[in-house]
Amino acid sequence: MLNELINKTDSRLEELLKPVYPEKIYEAMGYSVMAGGKRMRPVLMLLAYGAVGGSGDERILDFACALEMIHTYSLIHDDLPAMDNDDLRRGKPTCHKEFDEATAILAGDGLLTYAFEVMLRDKTQKYEPKYTRAAAEIARLSGMDGMLVGQVVDVDSEGKQIDAATLEYIHKNKTGGLIKAALMAGGIIGGADEPTIKLLESIGEDMGYAFQIKDDILDVTSTEEVLGKPILSDEKNQKVTYVSLYGLEKAQKDYLALSEAALEKTSRLGENAKELYDYIKGLIDRTK
Amino acid sequence: MLNELINKTDSRLEELLKPVYPEKIYEAMGYSVMAGGKRMRPVLMLLAYGAVGGSGDERILDFACALEMIHTYSLIHDDLPAMDNDDLRRGKPTCHKEFDEATAILAGDGLLTYAFEVMLRDKTQKYEPKYTRAAAEIARLSGMDGMLVGQVVDVDSEGKQIDAATLEYIHKNKTGGLIKAALMAGGIIGGADEPTIKLLESIGEDMGYAFQIKDDILDVTSTEEVLGKPILSDEKNQKVTYVSLYGLEKAQKDYLALSEAALEKTSRLGENAKELYDYIKGLIDRTK
Repeated sequence: MLNELINKTDSRLEELLKPVYPEKIYEAMGYSVMAGGKRMRPVLMLLAYGAVGGSGDERILDFACALEMIHTYSLIHDDLPAMDNDDLRRGKPTCHKEFDEATAILAGDGLLTYAFEVMLRDKTQKYEPKYTRAAAEIARLSGMDGMLVGQVVDVDSEGKQIDAATLEYIHKNKTGGLIKAALMAGGIIGGADEPTIKLLESIGEDMGYAFQIKDDILDVTSTEEVLGKPILSDEKNQKVTYVSLYGLEKAQKDYLALSEAALEKTSRLGENAKELYDYIKGLIDRTK
Repeated sequence: MLNELINKTDSRLEELLKPVYPEKIYEAMGYSVMAGGKRMRPVLMLLAYGAVGGSGDERILDFACALEMIHTYSLIHDDLPAMDNDDLRRGKPTCHKEFDEATAILAGDGLLTYAFEVMLRDKTQKYEPKYTRAAAEIARLSGMDGMLVGQVVDVDSEGKQIDAATLEYIHKNKTGGLIKAALMAGGIIGGADEPTIKLLESIGEDMGYAFQIKDDILDVTSTEEVLGKPILSDEKNQKVTYVSLYGLEKAQKDYLALSEAALEKTSRLGENAKELYDYIKGLIDRTK
């Protein structure tokens, strides 16, 4: 089931990014989008859609792909020399290393813009409200009320002693933005009512926060072999984390509490939400 | 009349970009958006809207502002060291000079994302098709069927002997994309029928091409004082231009023919299009 969702997403992404003139930009966009990753955001969107009883929608897959494109644009730009200056991502050269900096900037811009084109175009010319609303939430949560501002504060906090409220802001927005967007858009396109959309947003909020706390925990408890990247990097970079602020014990306790809350809320969605529940449970138990 | 449209656009842009936490990103976005410029794209959108009989729409101004934000994001990213590496724009430090590179990348990303949020959000929750369609055209023409791919080919052509077809592609897409988007979105939101939307697209196509040929002409015929930037820069940068390919005489002849075509098509829109006609006529006669 999970593999099927991932394969469907991957096939559609390949179709959407099939190079046409000017080929080079499609190649750079495709290189980064197809560079691996667990497709967490598309899967969450597709499972939330199913959880609220959605089925047979022709455009939900395009929305899932659009969200993955937005996620990938953020990785490409974060890796740039002026930002994190990373040469490798998932063991492969980053976009600006494989191509060049100008191409990486444009590939990021292209993915972000194309994501909105893919979400908004409608060959039936009906432009049904549910799609527009889903795209509106994705715009908000990718930008000025989510991912982008989380990243802004994160970049600005580098090497600074930030307080707990600032760390919470970064954690909830930077990763939480797109996780919330995935769940809400899936619910909206699946025809969920307002209380259910709110519930999905709240699940996303818990999950996004928990996800980042887990990252902080793994950085001090995992090994380089398991994680596939250097451990203790936060300490090395003098980065304030949930663990450095509160200690490992409280971090683990709070992580579990947030995860339990997300699962309890997911169970309230009813029997169609079983796959979403299992998927979130799997994310909680992740070791990398 | 023209000043009123510009002032209305400027006031709304100030409102939309009023700094809230994290202030720094709003300041960087606002710095570049409010750094001057003739607001050509918003004005074209508002005049096209009026030309098809539109009036009283509460959201047209937000669309005009969104288009200006998209235009500004493209300038911020084009100015980056990895792209054109420009320190000044309109006599002021470029965004990455005034702030820093990371902030400039994020300010560009922020403006692009926020533009879509501004276009898509709807406090009435009606999400009427005309707005979605206008936003869809803007996404397409800012991206993979307009500005972005024009810029990709332009960057890729630097220092190369490109052919006439490639130059036409750059000219028509890089600037033409947003000009077409401005006119089409104005028409769509103003309630234009399909043939009129097509006509507006065609006017935009002529204008965008003419606009770029004029840039090439001014680079060899104007003075640094009038233009406010160095002349003969294309020759210095060994850039293939319409003038270098076809000579000054044919460039001027073709420029006039395209401009006449745009004006003739605009006159077909009827009496409501008088202001749009006059504005396009003014752009044709521009000396800088």
